[in-house]
Amino acid sequence: MALLNDDRLFPADEGTRAIARRLYEGIRALPIVSPHGHTQAGWFARNQPFPDPVTLFVQPDHYVFRMLYSQGVSLEELEIGRPQVSNPRKVWSIFASHYYLFRGTPTRLWLDFAFQELFGLTERLSAATADHYYDVIDDKLKTAEFLPRALYDRFGLEVLATTDSPLDSLADHAAVRASGWKGRIVPTFRPDSVVDPSFADFHKNVQALGELTGEDTATWHGYLQALAARRAFFKAQGGTATDHGHATARTADLSEAESEWLFGKVLAGGADAAQQELFRAQMLTEMARMSLEDGLVMQIHPGSVRNHNRQIFERYGRDMGADIPASTSYVEELRPLLNRFGNETGLTIILFTLDETTYSRELAPLAGHYPCLRLGPSWWFHDSPEGMRRFREQVTETAGFYNTVGFNDDTRAFLSIPARHDVARRMDAGFLARLVAEHRIDEDEAVELAHELTVGLVKKAYKL
Amino acid sequence: MALLNDDRLFPADEGTRAIARRLYEGIRALPIVSPHGHTQAGWFARNQPFPDPVTLFVQPDHYVFRMLYSQGVSLEELEIGRPQVSNPRKVWSIFASHYYLFRGTPTRLWLDFAFQELFGLTERLSAATADHYYDVIDDKLKTAEFLPRALYDRFGLEVLATTDSPLDSLADHAAVRASGWKGRIVPTFRPDSVVDPSFADFHKNVQALGELTGEDTATWHGYLQALAARRAFFKAQGGTATDHGHATARTADLSEAESEWLFGKVLAGGADAAQQELFRAQMLTEMARMSLEDGLVMQIHPGSVRNHNRQIFERYGRDMGADIPASTSYVEELRPLLNRFGNETGLTIILFTLDETTYSRELAPLAGHYPCLRLGPSWWFHDSPEGMRRFREQVTETAGFYNTVGFNDDTRAFLSIPARHDVARRMDAGFLARLVAEHRIDEDEAVELAHELTVGLVKKAYKL
Amino acid sequence: MALLNDDRLFPADEGTRAIARRLYEGIRALPIVSPHGHTQAGWFARNQPFPDPVTLFVQPDHYVFRMLYSQGVSLEELEIGRPQVSNPRKVWSIFASHYYLFRGTPTRLWLDFAFQELFGLTERLSAATADHYYDVIDDKLKTAEFLPRALYDRFGLEVLATTDSPLDSLADHAAVRASGWKGRIVPTFRPDSVVDPSFADFHKNVQALGELTGEDTATWHGYLQALAARRAFFKAQGGTATDHGHATARTADLSEAESEWLFGKVLAGGADAAQQELFRAQMLTEMARMSLEDGLVMQIHPGSVRNHNRQIFERYGRDMGADIPASTSYVEELRPLLNRFGNETGLTIILFTLDETTYSRELAPLAGHYPCLRLGPSWWFHDSPEGMRRFREQVTETAGFYNTVGFNDDTRAFLSIPARHDVARRMDAGFLARLVAEHRIDEDEAVELAHELTVGLVKKAYKL
Repeated sequence: MALLNDDRLFPADEGTRAIARRLYEGIRALPIVSPHGHTQAGWFARNQPFPDPVTLFVQPDHYVFRMLYSQGVSLEELEIGRPQVSNPRKVWSIFASHYYLFRGTPTRLWLDFAFQELFGLTERLSAATADHYYDVIDDKLKTAEFLPRALYDRFGLEVLATTDSPLDSLADHAAVRASGWKGRIVPTFRPDSVVDPSFADFHKNVQALGELTGEDTATWHGYLQALAARRAFFKAQGGTATDHGHATARTADLSEAESEWLFGKVLAGGADAAQQELFRAQMLTEMARMSLEDGLVMQIHPGSVRNHNRQIFERYGRDMGADIPASTSYVEELRPLLNRFGNETGLTIILFTLDETTYSRELAPLAGHYPCLRLGPSWWFHDSPEGMRRFREQVTETAGFYNTVGFNDDTRAFLSIPARHDVARRMDAGFLARLVAEHRIDEDEAVELAHELTVGLVKKAYKL
Repeated sequence: MALLNDDRLFPADEGTRAIARRLYEGIRALPIVSPHGHTQAGWFARNQPFPDPVTLFVQPDHYVFRMLYSQGVSLEELEIGRPQVSNPRKVWSIFASHYYLFRGTPTRLWLDFAFQELFGLTERLSAATADHYYDVIDDKLKTAEFLPRALYDRFGLEVLATTDSPLDSLADHAAVRASGWKGRIVPTFRPDSVVDPSFADFHKNVQALGELTGEDTATWHGYLQALAARRAFFKAQGGTATDHGHATARTADLSEAESEWLFGKVLAGGADAAQQELFRAQMLTEMARMSLEDGLVMQIHPGSVRNHNRQIFERYGRDMGADIPASTSYVEELRPLLNRFGNETGLTIILFTLDETTYSRELAPLAGHYPCLRLGPSWWFHDSPEGMRRFREQVTETAGFYNTVGFNDDTRAFLSIPARHDVARRMDAGFLARLVAEHRIDEDEAVELAHELTVGLVKKAYKL
Repeated sequence: MALLNDDRLFPADEGTRAIARRLYEGIRALPIVSPHGHTQAGWFARNQPFPDPVTLFVQPDHYVFRMLYSQGVSLEELEIGRPQVSNPRKVWSIFASHYYLFRGTPTRLWLDFAFQELFGLTERLSAATADHYYDVIDDKLKTAEFLPRALYDRFGLEVLATTDSPLDSLADHAAVRASGWKGRIVPTFRPDSVVDPSFADFHKNVQALGELTGEDTATWHGYLQALAARRAFFKAQGGTATDHGHATARTADLSEAESEWLFGKVLAGGADAAQQELFRAQMLTEMARMSLEDGLVMQIHPGSVRNHNRQIFERYGRDMGADIPASTSYVEELRPLLNRFGNETGLTIILFTLDETTYSRELAPLAGHYPCLRLGPSWWFHDSPEGMRRFREQVTETAGFYNTVGFNDDTRAFLSIPARHDVARRMDAGFLARLVAEHRIDEDEAVELAHELTVGLVKKAYKL
């Protein structure tokens, strides 16, 4: 009995599957390069055991609790949002008895991988096996081999990027490096909280930015200086990239005077929604300009309508599974930025989307032309077998493979990292196998491409 | 010689096909639950023979005559819109000689199924076989086993929902029940004609609603009372659901005073297009509120541009194959309604779409979060093998299977019901078989899911 | 060793592949009908050798140089935009050493086909084989069998349509016919430069149109007369179609007086962007009216944002690989035109799109209803194996096969024509094979359909 089959996710056709197997064998054991995600440097700085199964698998994973919630399980029952889970075994039992809801979802694949590969569990999770699971996981979490640093090694991680506020001291990153441990945990500069006026505490954050850098962030000039200074600090701490989570992909190219005026308006809290949007747009272009100067790779993640569920937001705050993708467009939106910097070969901008219609219509044509553009992998809701397949099928013919950047796990769930990369490797092997089986590329090319998609392109794009 | 192959619609790969066959065998003979469609209760109340082949297969089926029309066959030749067909054999012969146009369409699958399974025809329909077909069908229609009630039994129907105006007396439904026949024909409350101000005779309809209920529908309060009363009446007649065919998915959450003012404006005929849209939007929220109270399941079918062809509309009226889907969005549109009722576990709202781009981008993320939301099956133009496949591939990974509600045949063509359900069962079996073949679920889970997708989920969602 | 496998592009499943092979064998040698493209009549009028490999394969092909550009190769290095290439061997070597970038793209398929089938090359192009390739191609280009007319015959072309300005004298077309050579090179009327006010030199072009026809194109009436006269001239020179490359699919149905006023405004250079758009919209309807009169088939190609890269446009001009598709819609946009002429069976309008989301949502429903509408094949970025597959999968179930018009190669690259048609034939064979394997059509029907998709439908739709 096993949760995982060695051929999982490969195409069913025997001939194609045989090719996929061979391609996968060549990449399955390659190190994991994780250039974008939401794990915490503090785990590796402190190297303490993860607590109970619920705190590890249910509480932080909005993929998990949003599905349970959609089927009538309340967040109260799951003890979501509590500083500490009072009855983890009971929450675990609710989760286990609803595990069938995840059939056909990537969450099921990720969890089964962790259950079997890390904890040696081979019977399916259900109400009947809930206690057994709980006991096995809880026990193992207390052992040395389940400490964060040990897992980092066991996962074959080569580098792991976190995502951090410009106001973060990066003390945990420094502590990791100071510890002498050989793991590489690098920060990513995510300035949303100081460039997006709709952000809670925007004004306070800009002030804090000034204090941190000694710049006068009440002025446009000082504000930009402060951002540049923090970028330099992140770079000095090992960072190679920035990340921008905006509602749209809109960019702007305002004059110095217009920017200055707009910043004043925004900072004074007098900007309306359109002006706030324009400010975010201008800031993307400013960030691109700084990237051209300091070499940090720029990631743009647009198109999520945040906190769609008002009641959940008011009760539980951000990132509670109630973010919903919306229609997104890039062609006119990116034009101001691209008109300034699009032809720069020294700049790398990695585009992501939650709107799959843009793959073949906009993103592949853009990335297949502009030297600065690359396409990030299928993201968030689309980080799944079918989502990955659609990405390759809709992007490759126009952008080629070499304008993409390999896989991102983008996860808060540390234990899901190897599972997620394994899914991506298998899906890429399967996609390449189909191209080989249909005689669109030769197998020696597929071998080379599989390696590129797994480690080559990601290292190059992210300068890792 | 046969029109139908036992393996039709299953994936070609032998291993996958074998799994699909096994899964299909487990569900092929399950009763048909038909929770949404456009057949007529009167057929079962009166139990009279269907007339000739043309009146059965050509006249009522806009899938059929829109294709012929697109290829230059006039509606006059087909005698569309006539109270009675004067030369059915001639119309049948035109249809037969154009039957090749349906190659690759679901209409072909549905018709071949009816031809072979119901009428024993096994040679392909064409000019050469037109007369033979006509004679065989015409003869059989006169026999007892082709009376509506006999067909209901033969099809294995367990329940059949019709779609009805709030002004309908539901006398036919009552007659069916009074007759002692064991068939279950239930009404569905479809209030478009009394909640959509752009509807022909809106004002007259609202007045009629008042007369029917004894409420003063000239006031907002009386209007709402009257709607609640008709809903209660439908429920008493066996109804379990409402249905709403709006141009968009827009909802609103106006204050009592705003609603009252808007209703006055709309009723006086003074509302402009934006105000009419706002009224429809508010009415969706009112209907959700009533559903929470009376337990009727709410279906929303947005996104069709009705009567696109002015000339056809002026000459032949509504529902003549000239409705065209348009780009639809849900995220901001549903927000007002969801902000009020989205977290209610006692409410069920089933969303449909004609815009497939919303499957993965909007609908699956919404249904995978909000407890009240479920996704209806692929609809209308997308109620087809490829359409069903895209639905499962784009919805399942985010919403799972359990936030969907099984199949709807949504048909006016009674004889196509078993064919349509058979297509859905085969496509689901094939989709599940692929998941099994790719080791994404186990076969015992697929067996359980196949059953759920065929009868379990639909009964639960529609409370049938 | 070979670049091409006989089974390329066929589905991997053995049973399906066997059917695809049989279907393909029935169409592989059929003549090529090329109803839409951008080759030059002058080639056949003068029948001179093509120059070196670079001028043939790299310089004119924006599919090629946009990919190289996207990966940091400058257009200067490639000598793009130069009247003559000074160092073709060096440019060829740059191209060859980047040939791996095209893995998984249709460009790779097209080029490999030309390399092997026309030049007998069987080792993959790379830095190592660059010189060998250059020598072989360069040598062969000087031989008689590589002259344009010889290639026309060798390709099995039956007719080849060019795309021409209304101001073109069509002297080359006349010269071809006068030469007594049996090849058929027909012009296509593409009036963008005289109907689109945003076009460079619009005013001058309208003036030239007047001079050419002896009409007073300063008046609305004279302008329309002049256009009709040039259409008649194109028709007399063998033309059967017009082509319209607009930013959107918008049409209008203004009164005579409104049109006249708008034309005056536009001609005087005083029209704003919205008025220019309205003028283009009205002109589509005028062109449809003329098509109904003179029988020219109308092609509409909307949805490309031209010259997206300002720097490239300023330095190199139009058509340099920097056109990017944008979201496009048809339902409301085409309504004015369709309300006037949509029900005419004597009119043929062929619709294209760069926005694949419209296939199932808008285009198939429209073409499956209106007698005048047909769907052009997948276009430009989507003229690729996956693009063709998506087109068939998303269009066929609603529009059927018979509302489509076969394949267009749409190319400037003469040598890619047989390769492109071969890809289309193989993909159609594969798609039909799947329908047969899944028992959705019978094989005798697929044989007939394969023939229709290859030559039947295109000849009928384009009246060739």
